[in-house]
Amino acid sequence: MSTAQVIARLLPALETPRRPVPDTAEAAVQDPIAIAKAVAAQLAQTAVERDRAGGHPAAERGLLRNSGLLWLSIPTEFGGPGHDWATVYQVVRILAGADSALAHLYGFHHLQLAGVLLYGTAEQQQRYLRATLEQKWFWGNALNPLDKRTVAEAEGEHWRIDGQKSFSSGSVGSDVLTFSAWHEESGTALIAAIPTTRKGVTVHADWDAFGQKQTDSGTVSFAGVELRAEEVLQAPAVAATPRATLRSCVAQLVMTNLYLGIAEGAYESALRYTRDEARAWFASGVPRSADDPFIQRRYGELRVKVRAAAALADEAARRLDAAFRKGAALTAADRGEVAVAIADAKVLAHEASLTVSSDLFDILGARATSQRYGFDRYWRNARTHTLHDPIDYKLRDLGRYAIDGRHPDPTPYS
Amino acid sequence: MSTAQVIARLLPALETPRRPVPDTAEAAVQDPIAIAKAVAAQLAQTAVERDRAGGHPAAERGLLRNSGLLWLSIPTEFGGPGHDWATVYQVVRILAGADSALAHLYGFHHLQLAGVLLYGTAEQQQRYLRATLEQKWFWGNALNPLDKRTVAEAEGEHWRIDGQKSFSSGSVGSDVLTFSAWHEESGTALIAAIPTTRKGVTVHADWDAFGQKQTDSGTVSFAGVELRAEEVLQAPAVAATPRATLRSCVAQLVMTNLYLGIAEGAYESALRYTRDEARAWFASGVPRSADDPFIQRRYGELRVKVRAAAALADEAARRLDAAFRKGAALTAADRGEVAVAIADAKVLAHEASLTVSSDLFDILGARATSQRYGFDRYWRNARTHTLHDPIDYKLRDLGRYAIDGRHPDPTPYS
Amino acid sequence: MSTAQVIARLLPALETPRRPVPDTAEAAVQDPIAIAKAVAAQLAQTAVERDRAGGHPAAERGLLRNSGLLWLSIPTEFGGPGHDWATVYQVVRILAGADSALAHLYGFHHLQLAGVLLYGTAEQQQRYLRATLEQKWFWGNALNPLDKRTVAEAEGEHWRIDGQKSFSSGSVGSDVLTFSAWHEESGTALIAAIPTTRKGVTVHADWDAFGQKQTDSGTVSFAGVELRAEEVLQAPAVAATPRATLRSCVAQLVMTNLYLGIAEGAYESALRYTRDEARAWFASGVPRSADDPFIQRRYGELRVKVRAAAALADEAARRLDAAFRKGAALTAADRGEVAVAIADAKVLAHEASLTVSSDLFDILGARATSQRYGFDRYWRNARTHTLHDPIDYKLRDLGRYAIDGRHPDPTPYS
Amino acid sequence: MSTAQVIARLLPALETPRRPVPDTAEAAVQDPIAIAKAVAAQLAQTAVERDRAGGHPAAERGLLRNSGLLWLSIPTEFGGPGHDWATVYQVVRILAGADSALAHLYGFHHLQLAGVLLYGTAEQQQRYLRATLEQKWFWGNALNPLDKRTVAEAEGEHWRIDGQKSFSSGSVGSDVLTFSAWHEESGTALIAAIPTTRKGVTVHADWDAFGQKQTDSGTVSFAGVELRAEEVLQAPAVAATPRATLRSCVAQLVMTNLYLGIAEGAYESALRYTRDEARAWFASGVPRSADDPFIQRRYGELRVKVRAAAALADEAARRLDAAFRKGAALTAADRGEVAVAIADAKVLAHEASLTVSSDLFDILGARATSQRYGFDRYWRNARTHTLHDPIDYKLRDLGRYAIDGRHPDPTPYS
Repeated sequence: MSTAQVIARLLPALETPRRPVPDTAEAAVQDPIAIAKAVAAQLAQTAVERDRAGGHPAAERGLLRNSGLLWLSIPTEFGGPGHDWATVYQVVRILAGADSALAHLYGFHHLQLAGVLLYGTAEQQQRYLRATLEQKWFWGNALNPLDKRTVAEAEGEHWRIDGQKSFSSGSVGSDVLTFSAWHEESGTALIAAIPTTRKGVTVHADWDAFGQKQTDSGTVSFAGVELRAEEVLQAPAVAATPRATLRSCVAQLVMTNLYLGIAEGAYESALRYTRDEARAWFASGVPRSADDPFIQRRYGELRVKVRAAAALADEAARRLDAAFRKGAALTAADRGEVAVAIADAKVLAHEASLTVSSDLFDILGARATSQRYGFDRYWRNARTHTLHDPIDYKLRDLGRYAIDGRHPDPTPYS
Repeated sequence: MSTAQVIARLLPALETPRRPVPDTAEAAVQDPIAIAKAVAAQLAQTAVERDRAGGHPAAERGLLRNSGLLWLSIPTEFGGPGHDWATVYQVVRILAGADSALAHLYGFHHLQLAGVLLYGTAEQQQRYLRATLEQKWFWGNALNPLDKRTVAEAEGEHWRIDGQKSFSSGSVGSDVLTFSAWHEESGTALIAAIPTTRKGVTVHADWDAFGQKQTDSGTVSFAGVELRAEEVLQAPAVAATPRATLRSCVAQLVMTNLYLGIAEGAYESALRYTRDEARAWFASGVPRSADDPFIQRRYGELRVKVRAAAALADEAARRLDAAFRKGAALTAADRGEVAVAIADAKVLAHEASLTVSSDLFDILGARATSQRYGFDRYWRNARTHTLHDPIDYKLRDLGRYAIDGRHPDPTPYS
Repeated sequence: MSTAQVIARLLPALETPRRPVPDTAEAAVQDPIAIAKAVAAQLAQTAVERDRAGGHPAAERGLLRNSGLLWLSIPTEFGGPGHDWATVYQVVRILAGADSALAHLYGFHHLQLAGVLLYGTAEQQQRYLRATLEQKWFWGNALNPLDKRTVAEAEGEHWRIDGQKSFSSGSVGSDVLTFSAWHEESGTALIAAIPTTRKGVTVHADWDAFGQKQTDSGTVSFAGVELRAEEVLQAPAVAATPRATLRSCVAQLVMTNLYLGIAEGAYESALRYTRDEARAWFASGVPRSADDPFIQRRYGELRVKVRAAAALADEAARRLDAAFRKGAALTAADRGEVAVAIADAKVLAHEASLTVSSDLFDILGARATSQRYGFDRYWRNARTHTLHDPIDYKLRDLGRYAIDGRHPDPTPYS
Repeated sequence: MSTAQVIARLLPALETPRRPVPDTAEAAVQDPIAIAKAVAAQLAQTAVERDRAGGHPAAERGLLRNSGLLWLSIPTEFGGPGHDWATVYQVVRILAGADSALAHLYGFHHLQLAGVLLYGTAEQQQRYLRATLEQKWFWGNALNPLDKRTVAEAEGEHWRIDGQKSFSSGSVGSDVLTFSAWHEESGTALIAAIPTTRKGVTVHADWDAFGQKQTDSGTVSFAGVELRAEEVLQAPAVAATPRATLRSCVAQLVMTNLYLGIAEGAYESALRYTRDEARAWFASGVPRSADDPFIQRRYGELRVKVRAAAALADEAARRLDAAFRKGAALTAADRGEVAVAIADAKVLAHEASLTVSSDLFDILGARATSQRYGFDRYWRNARTHTLHDPIDYKLRDLGRYAIDGRHPDPTPYS
């Protein structure tokens, strides 16, 4: 079956989420980029209006669910297509160009899969990853390590979980949640994965940021939730291996590609407007806005920012893949080098997303502020998402490395 | 009566627009800044929610109408308080810090009064300015000179007006409109003022930009509208005097102070959040966000941008006032010098408004993106409004002046 | 005698330093700005070549010495012209546009006079300031508080001074030196003024920075130097009054105006080159470089930076003068407000000097790199001088003030 | 022979230029990067002092001549090592980190070889390239196409050349010169290569820029110079093939890597100073400058600029190599894509070189301005060289391409 045929079959799936689409895994193996582009095109048709409305994008999550794209990072040994991270990130970027909220959900889903691969036992990997394929799981996140209100108490060999987690991206509408819970005795957190339907878990649709609106990033509350021992991916007081700490590298590179995708989407939208709709400024003396030397120069400026960020993001993805291939042999220094490459890319993508999404208006002019274009969503999305962790501390980490060769501390943010 | 008393009496007027408040003109004479601050505080209470809703701010326009602030620029010879432009602009800035849409309406109202003062005959000045005082007129704008769809045809000594005008700020809810209409024969435009209720005039509430939402800046359509000779402020084919071309200086400095007010409002809001709500980043090692050296440094950066723009805006206002005082003796060179001073200030205010309104988030962090704060409105408002005319051409004008002493051409945008 | 006549008589004085010029004090009273411009024009004629050669500018210091400009800040009660600081700083700026090394010497001379005024007793003020007038003293600086190698040991009621001081601006060729010396017992420094010819004082012409070459800023060494009690301006362990700490405000505003003068000089030189020598780029399609829209736009950008910095520098000078006028009543809070205003201005001047002096080349093109123009000296001078104290800490101070109202600590650098 | 052995044997060659070093070509084949690093280390020892002195670097050109590095780009079919352009550019960058003037000479030498490869006949390629190997030719440049003072007049089948050429990089001390001469009749230029010793050719050591001092970039004058037909690489009125126009791509990428090498050299020098010499600012509260968060953050900022520029420069080199491999089949569109990739990289390298070389001082502080470090040479070299062609027009070209897919016009500058 050709990619075109696969795509043609995928798109109706939007109407009937969870309709079995048995051979998309195969399609995802063959040409995930083409499928990503088709999905992005579909998302783009309603992105402006959904951005305005906010809320839970049930149908669009169904589209992703049925596209096979949620399986890309599952290794072949667990029945998945086994794509590398470079491919997963390309898809993040393509989706983010059209709809950075859905791209976020997509990226964070794979981040949870990375957690299973990095923290989980072989048995857990089998169980969770096979179920992800067979039951088309969409994973959500409730891991926010800065929010320590969720606590774990031992109950025999199991655990009882109580409390709240904010910034739980993808929680609404998820099938399974990765979460962290603070363990008072050891002064550390455990990390686990449970079905979102587990008794005592309540997902609140209370996310109300001005950007990344449809990321389902509200609060999850846990009331006497039973957590079974075999669901614990990382027990309290267990020192993470260098390999396990790659999880935050995966996360940081999801951010990077989201920012970059927003920058690319903004840039492409601006170009289309300039080509098709923009009017020359009366004092310019040129027939088309596209002929205005100031406009041309500004596009040159935006272009090099986007290209530079893309070059570093691509290189970082190659390094992350190499680190994954090293397996348990990965040293702290190896991990540190990957973290630095990702931090470099993240800084550039951060800046590109903000600059492009704001400066494009100086190119397009006043008429481009009409809400029918929705061009402000690029800035709102970039601005919201680039606050995940402060760029000043990212730059500080890079500076420390430059001066002393000190690698970023492996935290959930670096 | 003390200013505090005046203000106390003013505020209830919000409930009952057009309720007579006979002595506020006097109050406005005494302390317009205090009144502006009181009105701004009132506007601030609902600014976030009105920004979200958009639409026509009837009650808030009533508040302005009853505050006496709409009279500030009316000279004493016509019964007004005769404040200088520096004061009017201070008020623009204060209001814009709280609600830049209402500040826009306020500033554009005075721009229309400036039009009467600069273009009108003594008789027109008496008629329009006295009515503004007596009937508490709120002026709207339908002058957009780049939109030539509205045409004037002579009918005896009167005119017939047909067509459309976009970007008509303040048109909805106005009492009187200044507009321009293209005169085919002479290849020039006339400028006139008519009651908004004139037969054939329809004001469309179709403004849909993502920022400056409550500026009532939609389309006005004219269908066979009768324009009387005595309503024409500037007839077609009449060369504007240097003094008359000060109108675009007044307009450009309204923009400047709007941008600056947005920058100041954003800056002050950020500071309040940092003082009261922000949390230190976990890796900072300091107890309060306010103690983080990166946060402190960033505030330093924003502060100097705001202060620099304010210094040049204040100086430009002093020069504009001096130009008004020169009266008919104002030369083209005098006018050019004022235009240059305003352009300098506008460039800085443009940059300050965009930088502060976007960069403040790197200071405040992710929690500040909650819509309950409405902090994104500063960027949306700044971004929308700074597109009035392209900054690249403003910089070009300044460069030409630097090189060759060439003054900006007196156009509606410079 | 007209200013022109005074200037005409001043200029020959260059040939014969210390020739008596009895009535220039009067001229300096009448029109210091005109005299400053004449001196600047004189300095400009050899500035490029002296910048290349470096070394001690004996003749040019003679020109300053005979110009009356060294007396400007001496109050009338001591026989001086009693100009305000705003005027002194205007002169710094004018001189710096032509020759920022000589402007530095000029500014630091007045800084030493400020030290006498702020720290000295009435008797000391009489003695030092009258001698400055009568003997045409040129003051030098050996105060660098970060260099604690120079120590003071009590010898009866006098002191013995030993050690070294780096960064001693204006020391070579000075008549009198202000210096600080560390007093081990109290853990504080004393500040004193002695003739440069005092036995045991050696001034080394070892300044070798790549910019500000002719500032005579080398090392001063003290070998068993006798310091008399009546030469001590500030004794060890004496807490400085708020008024006394204005000395670093004076210093910081000298820097500010030096940076600004460099920016203005660079900007004006670039404009002259564009008008007279620059060639249009072959791909521009315009006859003159001055007609190139990119060139014009860049001048607009530079212009607003220079003007903004000038506006804040002027305002800071007004505040400093007001603080001086408060005399002993000056509170720590008053002093803090002045320091903040100066810090604002210094940040902008720092940025303007670096941006203008580097970006001007993108305007002028490759031929402007010929050493016959000496255009690189602006950047070298700005870059050297802007390192007096780190801009990051200046911004931090401003941020702290913005957040908490905390005034900059009164240190020698803030 | 090991690389280390080759390098050990190379270094003495500095003393006796043109001493035969028969097997370095082999070494250059084996490990040009290692040889480049050794040569760079050698150049670095005297770079500061030679930068101050300026003039012709005879010994250092001898070092390059004997290093085998001048042969890298000569294809194996002509007896050379046949390295790709990516390698040549790596060497440019490594040399430029130590001494950007010598790197310039090195890069321009290869640019002349590229001219022979792109314009020359098979016979010319054999003749010129074999002589380059056998006689260790160092090529110079006298091609400046904007300087049309040098003219060619036909004399039978040969030509007579008269006039002057400015900006002739590498002309002093060269063995052979590529030059262009204007042909009035056809309104085009010819390009040719002749021995520098040809009768009537005079090379003037009159280069006096403030940066890139030892690039021997002065004036070449031609007085009745005989040019033989077989020395003409490109005859007048012959349209260049797309492949031939790659010459300016090679040139632009030489610039790019020079800028980048300067940025890298400045960055590395700053880091060494911070590690070994810098002192913490008294108000920082940290023991080492390296521990200052502002310092760390600034290094992060510089680092990402350098890395981004390097990533795009490397990618551009890969594309250029691919274009060379296409040979005569290269289309105008292929060439355009290469030109765009190089322009992207050049813009970033331009910015990185200027930013790093100026901002490093804010990191290092005032003591780093001592001329014994020579740190200002990075900015002077970057600033001089980045004026080769205006960045605004480069950005314009990129913008045109972004908007309309229009490739840069193949000119000597794009």
